[in-house]
Amino acid sequence: MTAQQAQKNEKKNSKTAVTPTRAENFPEWYQGVIKAADMAENAPVRGCMVIKPYGYALWENIQRALDDMIRAEGVQNAYFPLLIPLSFISREAEHVEGFAKECAVVTHHRLEKGPKGNLVPAPDSKLEEPFVIRPTSETIIGDSMAKWAQSYRDLPLKLNQWCNVMRWEMRTRMFLRTSEFLWQEGHNAFETAKEAHEDAIKMLEIYRRLYEDWLAIPGIPGEKTDDERFPGADRSFTIEAMMQDGKALQACTSHDLGQNFAKSCGIQFQGRDGNIHLAHTTSWGLSTRSVGGLIMTHADDDGMIMPPRVAPYHVAIIPVIRDEDGGKVMESCTQLANRLKESGLRVLLDTSDRRTPDKMWDAIKKGVPMRVEIGAREAAEGTVTHIRRDIGRDSKTVCAVSEFAGKAQGILNDIQKNLLEKARTFTQNHIFEVKTVSEAHDFFAADKTGFVKMDAAFLKEPRFEAVRKDFSVTPRCLPFTDEGRKVIIGRSY
Amino acid sequence: MTAQQAQKNEKKNSKTAVTPTRAENFPEWYQGVIKAADMAENAPVRGCMVIKPYGYALWENIQRALDDMIRAEGVQNAYFPLLIPLSFISREAEHVEGFAKECAVVTHHRLEKGPKGNLVPAPDSKLEEPFVIRPTSETIIGDSMAKWAQSYRDLPLKLNQWCNVMRWEMRTRMFLRTSEFLWQEGHNAFETAKEAHEDAIKMLEIYRRLYEDWLAIPGIPGEKTDDERFPGADRSFTIEAMMQDGKALQACTSHDLGQNFAKSCGIQFQGRDGNIHLAHTTSWGLSTRSVGGLIMTHADDDGMIMPPRVAPYHVAIIPVIRDEDGGKVMESCTQLANRLKESGLRVLLDTSDRRTPDKMWDAIKKGVPMRVEIGAREAAEGTVTHIRRDIGRDSKTVCAVSEFAGKAQGILNDIQKNLLEKARTFTQNHIFEVKTVSEAHDFFAADKTGFVKMDAAFLKEPRFEAVRKDFSVTPRCLPFTDEGRKVIIGRSY
Repeated sequence: MTAQQAQKNEKKNSKTAVTPTRAENFPEWYQGVIKAADMAENAPVRGCMVIKPYGYALWENIQRALDDMIRAEGVQNAYFPLLIPLSFISREAEHVEGFAKECAVVTHHRLEKGPKGNLVPAPDSKLEEPFVIRPTSETIIGDSMAKWAQSYRDLPLKLNQWCNVMRWEMRTRMFLRTSEFLWQEGHNAFETAKEAHEDAIKMLEIYRRLYEDWLAIPGIPGEKTDDERFPGADRSFTIEAMMQDGKALQACTSHDLGQNFAKSCGIQFQGRDGNIHLAHTTSWGLSTRSVGGLIMTHADDDGMIMPPRVAPYHVAIIPVIRDEDGGKVMESCTQLANRLKESGLRVLLDTSDRRTPDKMWDAIKKGVPMRVEIGAREAAEGTVTHIRRDIGRDSKTVCAVSEFAGKAQGILNDIQKNLLEKARTFTQNHIFEVKTVSEAHDFFAADKTGFVKMDAAFLKEPRFEAVRKDFSVTPRCLPFTDEGRKVIIGRSY
Repeated sequence: MTAQQAQKNEKKNSKTAVTPTRAENFPEWYQGVIKAADMAENAPVRGCMVIKPYGYALWENIQRALDDMIRAEGVQNAYFPLLIPLSFISREAEHVEGFAKECAVVTHHRLEKGPKGNLVPAPDSKLEEPFVIRPTSETIIGDSMAKWAQSYRDLPLKLNQWCNVMRWEMRTRMFLRTSEFLWQEGHNAFETAKEAHEDAIKMLEIYRRLYEDWLAIPGIPGEKTDDERFPGADRSFTIEAMMQDGKALQACTSHDLGQNFAKSCGIQFQGRDGNIHLAHTTSWGLSTRSVGGLIMTHADDDGMIMPPRVAPYHVAIIPVIRDEDGGKVMESCTQLANRLKESGLRVLLDTSDRRTPDKMWDAIKKGVPMRVEIGAREAAEGTVTHIRRDIGRDSKTVCAVSEFAGKAQGILNDIQKNLLEKARTFTQNHIFEVKTVSEAHDFFAADKTGFVKMDAAFLKEPRFEAVRKDFSVTPRCLPFTDEGRKVIIGRSY
């Protein structure tokens, strides 16, 4: 079969690779994409997921990009305990009230054979003080910071850890909300309030760059309203990204914790004036939730679409083999794969014994940014057929191998740019600025897709409380661009 | 102060940087090195540690090196849940008997205010089935493998995860034995017993290369005796490394699990013959314990000595500043730092306002492989004074900046080689081959340093049982080099 024939077969298949489609049922489509792209699956542990190799490779690419950016800010990676004593959690009252209740609690340290022969927690191994599995690490890292920051010379102290955390979630959805998830959590301590405030803003800017430059997601950076602040923070900052269904994803957060945790953890230092002062701290985190955001921003009814800069593979090379000319085709494919790899591209050469259309659909569903097909004709002529995942069949081009090798990186750059522009246009087209609360009410009553932007003062009007309740919408953020005068309202994940 | 004067001051200080010394009290010296090098400290959580930035940077370098080697074997990274249902743990009987008892057990999922106003596990949040925090993941990964391996076409299935695990240890020591530790655990599944066996051996060979080529630790690869096997494994392989006190460190393990876990987890596939077969699996792990091994192999009475290939910093540049010529000295230091960084070296330029001798001692205690001092004379003459950490003052050399920049990598290579050779010589000189059990008895009775090597058949002699008990020694491994005929005996960590 030539590449051309294979394409014809593909065309016959007019169904979408993922059912239901986005329009039919967005939440089910989301699960369908994860399955089609083989990124993750539900674990046999309540509310947890298994991140499969293809999904994990994406997360590793996100990690690498973000880790480099975090280091460039002078932050050092370290590792703190998974278990937090209950007494630590209790220290910051507001933190406890608003946050630290739904936790996995460790109460025993040994198993033994129970009456039915099964394993049970050994009664005599009951812990005097239970532990919780960290839902976040302000309290335990604060405990170390209290030891390490003795003098103003020890500040700023900038720490980050990549780890798993756990919050006992009742309604879970893969990547978006799972009981266990992976993230980085940064914790910085400073001499002055000004430095801490600037740091919280700066780390949010790091996230904005990661989202725009790497994930091609154009979020709206801003401040959380008082009701939506992180418990224990003076001010919380966020990037709110619009998903294709018009809902908001809180894509990351950065908190100016003021002196709250410094006080509860005892982070104090001898200042330049010789007196003892409380430090000013920040914390900032980005999690595997970003993968969910990536899916809901870019994927389509045929599956995932990976932005090239974080894509596990840049190019999928698919040999289109008829029996007689397999050797020659495979040789051409291997040569191209090596050539592209040498130029730094991540290449998937599909040598499996599946049917050609299955290989093609697999590359499509996985969202590999560029697909290359080499059949008998291409091999003989020294050409390749290449197709961009983001614009599909319309981009189908045949050119000489050397020409393709020379321009592949440029095409990937175009795809990256196109995905960002597309998402930016979508977001801009779905933010509706209203002049009254009743306009906001009408927008959500009509079940329109997107965010409402309105005067921040409206939040205090009694009529807004009704809108909030009737349509389950929340203030997402006070965008920086409007200097706190406006607020973005929407449904959210 | 010139570099020369500073050196004189340093010489006056004839005490060692770490007390007690190795000879005086090896275990306390070990803790002292960790403290002096600022690598880790005990956590406020029983049996756990905080890995500080300098220790974590070392672990990240080990991770990166090993991860590359693991990927090159076609293994894919993924992530599986932290919590394991008790029913999973119960599946493999031998695994339960020998292994899975001392675990952190999660029994509740919510906290509430208790009678005294403190937080307590909410009684109504008690879990129907408790979970344990993974002590290792054979059972939970096996559960996924059972889904993913349907046909022989899905095999081999090669998975690895970098994660934290937890075993409730009673006697803990930083890096060597902590309740929570970090590791990678690889889990591979194959069609045939032969492939699984070869894989277990191959992954051990990967570890041997990591230890020798990167950590400069010459271990003894071999097989565990039946008593020392991993519960649930058919055969266990290990690398046993000799520490400077003559004790053995089990540096990593690789297990041929036969069909044991395939049976208990239901990992079966349709074979080439159309019938359903059980898979053959392996598992293999290397942990933060390797950091402990690195310390006990290379460190001396002045602190850590980092093998260059995994060292957080290759070169510490120390400005030796008198008031008047600070600017010129700093300029020379910065220029050199940039030049070395450009050539790919990891450089620590100590710009802190500490005293010069403190900076020097800090570099020594942290084990930075090479120290460079630039004072007024060096800055004026365009020279540097450089000192190797592994051979100390004897290596002190003054040369032109450009000459140093050109040869720095070569010196690092020499240091790497020297550390391995030194450790190899030490190990070889402390393995005593005995011809009878009573000779083995005499060796340990005389409290000699090192391993005994003897005929493997001696293990079955009743007299050996006495040696084992009297001196707390165990068979460490049956070295591959002796094809199972000999056994290495020793005390161990």
